[in-house]
Amino acid sequence: MQNNTAKKIVCIGGGTGTFVVLRGLKHYQHTLSAIVTMSDSGGSNRRLRDEFGLLPTSDLRQCLVALADESGGVGLLRKLFMYRFEKGNGIAGMTFGNLFMAALTDILGSQEEAIRKTSKVLRIKGAVIPVTFTDTNLYATYENGHTVSEEHLIDEPQHDGKLKITNVSLMPDAIANKDALKAIKQADLVVIGPGDLYTSIIPNLLVPKIGDALAQTNAKVVYVLNLMTKFGQTYNFKASDHVLAIEKFIGTSLDYVVVNKDAIPKKALDVYAACHEEPVIDDLTDDHCTVVRAPLISSALIEKSAADTLVRSLIRHDSDLLAKTLVSLL
Amino acid sequence: MQNNTAKKIVCIGGGTGTFVVLRGLKHYQHTLSAIVTMSDSGGSNRRLRDEFGLLPTSDLRQCLVALADESGGVGLLRKLFMYRFEKGNGIAGMTFGNLFMAALTDILGSQEEAIRKTSKVLRIKGAVIPVTFTDTNLYATYENGHTVSEEHLIDEPQHDGKLKITNVSLMPDAIANKDALKAIKQADLVVIGPGDLYTSIIPNLLVPKIGDALAQTNAKVVYVLNLMTKFGQTYNFKASDHVLAIEKFIGTSLDYVVVNKDAIPKKALDVYAACHEEPVIDDLTDDHCTVVRAPLISSALIEKSAADTLVRSLIRHDSDLLAKTLVSLL
Repeated sequence: MQNNTAKKIVCIGGGTGTFVVLRGLKHYQHTLSAIVTMSDSGGSNRRLRDEFGLLPTSDLRQCLVALADESGGVGLLRKLFMYRFEKGNGIAGMTFGNLFMAALTDILGSQEEAIRKTSKVLRIKGAVIPVTFTDTNLYATYENGHTVSEEHLIDEPQHDGKLKITNVSLMPDAIANKDALKAIKQADLVVIGPGDLYTSIIPNLLVPKIGDALAQTNAKVVYVLNLMTKFGQTYNFKASDHVLAIEKFIGTSLDYVVVNKDAIPKKALDVYAACHEEPVIDDLTDDHCTVVRAPLISSALIEKSAADTLVRSLIRHDSDLLAKTLVSLL
Repeated sequence: MQNNTAKKIVCIGGGTGTFVVLRGLKHYQHTLSAIVTMSDSGGSNRRLRDEFGLLPTSDLRQCLVALADESGGVGLLRKLFMYRFEKGNGIAGMTFGNLFMAALTDILGSQEEAIRKTSKVLRIKGAVIPVTFTDTNLYATYENGHTVSEEHLIDEPQHDGKLKITNVSLMPDAIANKDALKAIKQADLVVIGPGDLYTSIIPNLLVPKIGDALAQTNAKVVYVLNLMTKFGQTYNFKASDHVLAIEKFIGTSLDYVVVNKDAIPKKALDVYAACHEEPVIDDLTDDHCTVVRAPLISSALIEKSAADTLVRSLIRHDSDLLAKTLVSLL
């Protein structure tokens, strides 16, 4: 592909879904940016926040790994970044990448600079942009009036996971990273998702001005629909429920929704069903945006996530198929 | 300097002294190898051994840092390698470099391979060679009959530090790393020290066949005398006591002893005196080896060690002056 056809693609999310999208898109000669959530509060991130006084970095780390050079010494460093310690009192459970960024922040004096330098060391293709540098937490209120005050409490619900979330917010208010606003403004294509709706996608849209930027950009704005519902977040959600939840925060309609049309293997369905999770039913019509349907499932059942997911992802989007579909929209 | 004049220099030790020698010698076009002790058992190393089931790596790490490329992204990685965490429950006190090597060993399945790959990633000039891969401990017996069974108990004596060590050994017996034997055999110059006599230098010589290799090599064998005595190890030791202790393990006489002839600044002397440590008195004659006297002290008082020393090193050898003196012996 010629450089003069290179376009700007911005991916919004965090978590494994964004990892998958970036891994596919990195093979194209387009300029990539990943805008990622900064309100994670579970496990390794909780410790970074409480013990190191840092912003959470797990979502950042996954995106850095997705875009990192995979060859030679840098490839080895990339592997280390994905490594989670299994031994050591107080060390087991921590990811090497998070410790790397904690040490670098201390050496350089700023987490922003540490992220920049890490991007260089890993020779990433593109830019990983924290949606905000504000130390903020995600609050969610459920239809029964119950409120939780941290992202990981949504991920690991202590209550009935069938309850619908009726309101989400960030406290304190976050200030948008101007690099994120600039990237959205200059983009040719913005890809939202796939990813956990209320913990990986919407926390980005809750940052003031991000929604406005998405409403105002000339870029085509695409949402990649999740394959499965998520207990505790999107129980019984159909495709239209996902789309409406996102459009509510952007304030305008999406240009495209990308939907998988492959059947999901029975073996995976059984595992998910035991967790009250089902394939997202495609009830979308072309009334207010274009629906792109394609076979998008990865043929390999993934036994262990390479990244930071709390629950094992049995099925995923196929990076290459998804990227091909997205690039065709440019 | 032309490549055809490049010689092979082997440094034997561990700790800060070897760090200083290597830092100076790396600027010459000679081939460098560092043979380092593997019986450290304090702090970060204790945890590596107990919690990760690994061999200690602090001495290795210091040598890797000394020989690492200091430019660009690798330079930053080098800085990280020296970093010691100050925060985090169970993490504070650990060095990043040790965690790096622990993670890499788990990924690669072998500590030997992890050391090799780390050397590549840090683009080190030369080779860092563990004296042994045997999991072994240093035992020391004092003149009052008291025996301690770990290296860090010698470094931090719980008894009268004026006592002389009458016997040292490794248990279980260590098997020499064949790369170490080969390096000594092929060397043009072997530099022993400077460094703590019983915890950084002699543990190398206690590994069977290392002393024999030193006795048999055609290389010139040089000992760099320490600047100061060390309470708990070499209290009241004169230069000749140091030399005799080393020659006892090699079984032959040294070719050269390099001795500082600069006066040590009063400010430093006062600090050391409070710890029962004095400049090593130069009582050497040219009777059995050549004594090379030169001004070798670093002009900067070092407030904080870049490396792993338990006690702050107030004065050190000057890397460049020492290297110049050593190279002149080739």
